[in-house]
Amino acid sequence: MKRLLVIGIGAGNPDYITMQAVKALNRVDVFFLMDKGQSKDKLIDLRRDICERYITDHPYRFAEAHSPERERGEVDYTTSVDDLNRAKQQTFERLIDDELADGQCGGFLVWGDPALYDSTVRILQAILADGHCQFEFEVIPGITSVQALAAQHKVPLNTIGRSIEITTGRRLAAGQVSDTDSLVVMLDAEDSYHHVADPETEIYWGAYLGTPDEILISGKLGEVADEIERVRKAARLAHGWIMDTYLLRKP
Amino acid sequence: MKRLLVIGIGAGNPDYITMQAVKALNRVDVFFLMDKGQSKDKLIDLRRDICERYITDHPYRFAEAHSPERERGEVDYTTSVDDLNRAKQQTFERLIDDELADGQCGGFLVWGDPALYDSTVRILQAILADGHCQFEFEVIPGITSVQALAAQHKVPLNTIGRSIEITTGRRLAAGQVSDTDSLVVMLDAEDSYHHVADPETEIYWGAYLGTPDEILISGKLGEVADEIERVRKAARLAHGWIMDTYLLRKP
Ligand SMILES: C[S@@+](CC[C@H](N)C(=O)[O-])C[C@H]1O[C@@H](n2cnc3c(N)ncnc32)[C@H](O)[C@@H]1O
Ligand SMILES: C[S@@+](CC[C@H](N)C(=O)[O-])C[C@H]1O[C@@H](n2cnc3c(N)ncnc32)[C@H](O)[C@@H]1O
Repeated sequence: MKRLLVIGIGAGNPDYITMQAVKALNRVDVFFLMDKGQSKDKLIDLRRDICERYITDHPYRFAEAHSPERERGEVDYTTSVDDLNRAKQQTFERLIDDELADGQCGGFLVWGDPALYDSTVRILQAILADGHCQFEFEVIPGITSVQALAAQHKVPLNTIGRSIEITTGRRLAAGQVSDTDSLVVMLDAEDSYHHVADPETEIYWGAYLGTPDEILISGKLGEVADEIERVRKAARLAHGWIMDTYLLRKP
Repeated sequence: MKRLLVIGIGAGNPDYITMQAVKALNRVDVFFLMDKGQSKDKLIDLRRDICERYITDHPYRFAEAHSPERERGEVDYTTSVDDLNRAKQQTFERLIDDELADGQCGGFLVWGDPALYDSTVRILQAILADGHCQFEFEVIPGITSVQALAAQHKVPLNTIGRSIEITTGRRLAAGQVSDTDSLVVMLDAEDSYHHVADPETEIYWGAYLGTPDEILISGKLGEVADEIERVRKAARLAHGWIMDTYLLRKP
């Protein structure tokens, strides 16, 4: 039997790695690297660094795969992600078939936690459901960018006894969010916080969380929204890419 | 200046601890232990174990404090938590004043992540806002029970492009939840999943996650709800207490 480990490596700070993840890293024979887009090189370097730092005496190698890009533009979002995942599924199947011998262990290093806006687990479940190839797999949680955000701002995610909603910039812009008082927004390419009506809403914004480039801004939306937009634009220009997340708290 | 570290230790498995938390543990002079209720002894033991295992050469001691209990019964939930937090705030102030010398470092070991349904950060912010005592503090994230749940069930928390709501059993029972397709329920003392109308809803339930006593049950609510209630009751009887969490996914 082949074995796969889906390892959450935390979202930014290399010290976010857990002991469980370190033990898992030391069991992996082949790491599959699948990053894409402009942040690719930086994120792949970080994964190599993590392996160098934490793998003590287990021999390992990397297998890099071209990761298909999502079609942007007019296509429906879910359909395009669906298509992308089907393409990814084929890539994964090929990697598992070609790069892994029976009894060997393959590893996916997932940014943050594999359960949060990441397709690795879904794709592995789909491969198993299709019966195309056989393997066992384990999931190892990692510190998410949401937790990094809350920790760096020293703020709880929830208010007492209330709910938290975690959503996407796209949904916030489309008004597809609930009326909870604590809303966490990820995957926002378009400064969707401008769509929030109440200027008294507090925003806790963070970019490149946990890394040396971290930027934190917080305050009432009415007072800091424009500053965030400016800083965000400048940072994205300077780095060529940006990762940012924010918590919106109703007054 | 006094310094406080609010350290997330993960929710169950001692290997959930991060490198960042290990480094933080090694800076602490005095650990404040504040657990309460029936799980108290077990959870305090676990904290002592973590310190023994991961602190390499820094001398430290424990300061135990009686942690006030929330009043149950007819009192309004938010008010009772508010009162509790005020009492806790006084306990914290006393600990910081009496147990910590200037230049020393105090540590709170928080179950899971300090940002999720935990009052430590809120109370420290309130103390600083009141100006009663002065200190600097840092927050170190930890693996939450929500992440443990998703990892152990090998399931993503969100569906593609959709939101996740994290809420309490109390809110689910009161119908105070949004119509998101992914609902995570914590702090449920009353089997509130019975309030979900659609028997086709998938439930991923976990108790004592990450510990040797872990129990996992999943399936359509219509098929497994009664089994979960039975298993939950028996486990709570056997252990004297229970910690459980679940994800509800609409069909
Ligand atoms: C595809 S999702 C992956 C999330 C990841 N699995 C996690 O647990 O955080 C990518 C989004 O996560 C957020 N993100 C990830 N890392 C971040 C960081 N270091 N700082 C700020 N936001 C981050 C951004 O909102 C980004 O658009
Ligand atoms: C006061 S909240 C604290 C949550 C914690 N800060 C975290 O990050 O998971 C306690 C609730 O967390 C959940 N919980 C904590 N640890 C758990 C575990 N090991 N297994 C299942 N549920 C757990 C239960 O729903 C419990 O009622």
